Amino acid sequence: MRGLFISVEGVEGSGKTTVVKALADWISQNELEVIVTAEPGGTDLGERIRQLLLDPHPSSLIPHPLSEAFLFFADRADHVAKVIRPALEQGKIVLCDRFADSTFAYQSFGLGLSLGLLKGLNGIATGGVMPDLTLLLDIDPEIGLQRIQKKTVFERYPLPFHQRVRWGYLWLAKHEPNRIKVIDAGQTMGAVLAQAKTLAEEAIASWRFQASSATNTP
Amino acid sequence: MRGLFISVEGVEGSGKTTVVKALADWISQNELEVIVTAEPGGTDLGERIRQLLLDPHPSSLIPHPLSEAFLFFADRADHVAKVIRPALEQGKIVLCDRFADSTFAYQSFGLGLSLGLLKGLNGIATGGVMPDLTLLLDIDPEIGLQRIQKKTVFERYPLPFHQRVRWGYLWLAKHEPNRIKVIDAGQTMGAVLAQAKTLAEEAIASWRFQASSATNTP
Repeated sequence: MRGLFISVEGVEGSGKTTVVKALADWISQNELEVIVTAEPGGTDLGERIRQLLLDPHPSSLIPHPLSEAFLFFADRADHVAKVIRPALEQGKIVLCDRFADSTFAYQSFGLGLSLGLLKGLNGIATGGVMPDLTLLLDIDPEIGLQRIQKKTVFERYPLPFHQRVRWGYLWLAKHEPNRIKVIDAGQTMGAVLAQAKTLAEEAIASWRFQASSATNTP
Repeated sequence: MRGLFISVEGVEGSGKTTVVKALADWISQNELEVIVTAEPGGTDLGERIRQLLLDPHPSSLIPHPLSEAFLFFADRADHVAKVIRPALEQGKIVLCDRFADSTFAYQSFGLGLSLGLLKGLNGIATGGVMPDLTLLLDIDPEIGLQRIQKKTVFERYPLPFHQRVRWGYLWLAKHEPNRIKVIDAGQTMGAVLAQAKTLAEEAIASWRFQASSATNTP
């Protein structure tokens, strides 16, 4: 894989979409090829799965939690195979709004499925493709939820659910500090973007250095 | 689990639907409670997943094979949790048109995914719920496909695919002879139904004997 994979994570209303857009603009201005994508719904099939997951009306469409996890992995397997892996193999930068850590935080810490089980299923769905850098936009969910206008199924969950998700994200970051970098998303958006840009800049510099070293090796 | 779980399997056009219906009528006449169900699509959510799986238009909706497997397991996890397990816990007989062996035969022998991987994922999706008896209606797919009117995605696959699926079913039956009973579905429907009824009768007799022994144990 010659590309660079960056994911952006966080609870609802943490500012992921704004950060992804700003980073994509900045990377493009630096004349690097960037693919912007999101989960769930990164492929046409994924968009249909997303509708099932985020808008379950009538309530008989609400999946059993295990079934829900399988739907997220169906979306991810399709997304990795059709979008992320091909872009990385072409040496591009992939910027993804939510990826594996969302499943771990929401389905395990939020809904109580086994983290080990989810990590195993994720490994199968992705074939081992994981972000090189994950920006975790950390915010009190009470503040985050106030920022949201259109509510989806997860946004309608009670506050303690979102607090468990936030705690889960921070737990994951603590256990993978090299990959997951925490940004205080309670700051002004200008400060958040500056920090996100610095972290992405470091990852890109290190990636380009490795790529040039590999090229220079006899 | 106090109920009895019977699945009916076979390639397209093997007569599964007719056999399931006849068995259900016969079991009801014997004053036993029976639930008739099918995969994919045994729940409201499953019906939506079934549409995605069996009618992928436009072609960008055709899932990557691994994603397809996850969709089948999402359907199965919901089906087991909401329909099959509750019925078995209430002591009912569950008759299911296709179950785990379809995934093994189609996704592994037909499409080339690892059988071990699919068995592992199936164990997670079902929590270990497997049929007590599986009736495998075995027929040359060339004859079976001629019987089919409305074609779904799998029925449009080329003949060698269906021959691999048939071979896979027979391989599974050879490795689990106590659970999977092969019926020659090239016989007259009367002969197929008589054999299916005899096999179901034996399974029901043995199940009722075990249930009464359990009750009589001090």
